[in-house]
Amino acid sequence: MAAIDLRQTRRDAVADEIERVAIDLFAARGLDVTVDEIAEAAGISARTFFRYFPTKGDVVRAHRRRLVARLVRALAARPADEGPVRAMREAQLATARMRPEDRARVALVGTVLAEGRSNGAYAAAHDPEQIEALVVLVAERFGVSAATDPRPGIVVAVIMAAADVVFGRWVERGGRGDLEAAMAEAFGMLDAGLAGLDVAAHRSKRKAR
Amino acid sequence: MAAIDLRQTRRDAVADEIERVAIDLFAARGLDVTVDEIAEAAGISARTFFRYFPTKGDVVRAHRRRLVARLVRALAARPADEGPVRAMREAQLATARMRPEDRARVALVGTVLAEGRSNGAYAAAHDPEQIEALVVLVAERFGVSAATDPRPGIVVAVIMAAADVVFGRWVERGGRGDLEAAMAEAFGMLDAGLAGLDVAAHRSKRKAR
Repeated sequence: MAAIDLRQTRRDAVADEIERVAIDLFAARGLDVTVDEIAEAAGISARTFFRYFPTKGDVVRAHRRRLVARLVRALAARPADEGPVRAMREAQLATARMRPEDRARVALVGTVLAEGRSNGAYAAAHDPEQIEALVVLVAERFGVSAATDPRPGIVVAVIMAAADVVFGRWVERGGRGDLEAAMAEAFGMLDAGLAGLDVAAHRSKRKAR
Repeated sequence: MAAIDLRQTRRDAVADEIERVAIDLFAARGLDVTVDEIAEAAGISARTFFRYFPTKGDVVRAHRRRLVARLVRALAARPADEGPVRAMREAQLATARMRPEDRARVALVGTVLAEGRSNGAYAAAHDPEQIEALVVLVAERFGVSAATDPRPGIVVAVIMAAADVVFGRWVERGGRGDLEAAMAEAFGMLDAGLAGLDVAAHRSKRKAR
């Protein structure tokens, strides 16, 4: 039993290292980097690379999984008495927080993830099991079952959708500007309700006339 | 010029017919249906099928594109004086409206689309150009540019995300229940604002104690 666990731990460590090296190369040079180049940079053979990742796209997917796993952990770690919406929002903000020196790299990785998303071969909606984990955590805070109540699923989906839009715009700006503040503003909009936006739009259009 | 257009029109008509036949087969029997079976049902050769769709997944993607294209048209057709949020919401509701006799088929097609989404090979986030068309239409109603204002992109993303969750739950229930009413309820929640949900969650948890 212990032997198997050790082997799995070693396997995970190698996969993590390949992922790190590959994402760095993608961030620096785009998705055209070849498997041979990734393998060389990681100090392994292409054959070994394929034992861990059947395709380059699987590396991108693994990286996206890791980011969502961080979100799941951040949500699970929020105080027990925090409401479902606030907890989900704060977890999302926490995962968007970064050291100033990491900005450029995060923006480049964001470009790779966005490119991977629009490219059929790398296409990656989020892992349904990870989304389910978030929905279950939010449902607990609602005190309801996600099987019968649609609200937890909707809260998770709309907060992630808003965060994705804000992150995508930040990536397009090359990581300039305060990502966390922009996300907080978007979440504030959702908190206050979309109905208010129509009123604001009506006013600003009348002024423009 | 006219000759080329005619050829394109004929090509589109054939592609539409293949898509219709394939989606019906997928809905009836799942994604395992072979290209040979689709081709036979459409009265063409497998070779011809591949001239129109490189893979089975491309048929599913084409179908998803058609659904979003309907949403774009519905949004463009909303009254000019309607606010951005309401217009997007009503367009989404209009595309969810169906004749009672179509329910079972729509639910089955929904299963195929959901299966296609979680399966890497068929994975399909929405077409970025179609989403951009929606965002531009919503930005016009805001009287702002989507390049500088994040609100139109957020409104489109969160309304589509909420609609997707509700549709997915309806599909899981085999198309039972009123899809449009469930969507309207979700949109009402977004209109009123997520902040209210935390208050409701707090109350219902306190009562449960």
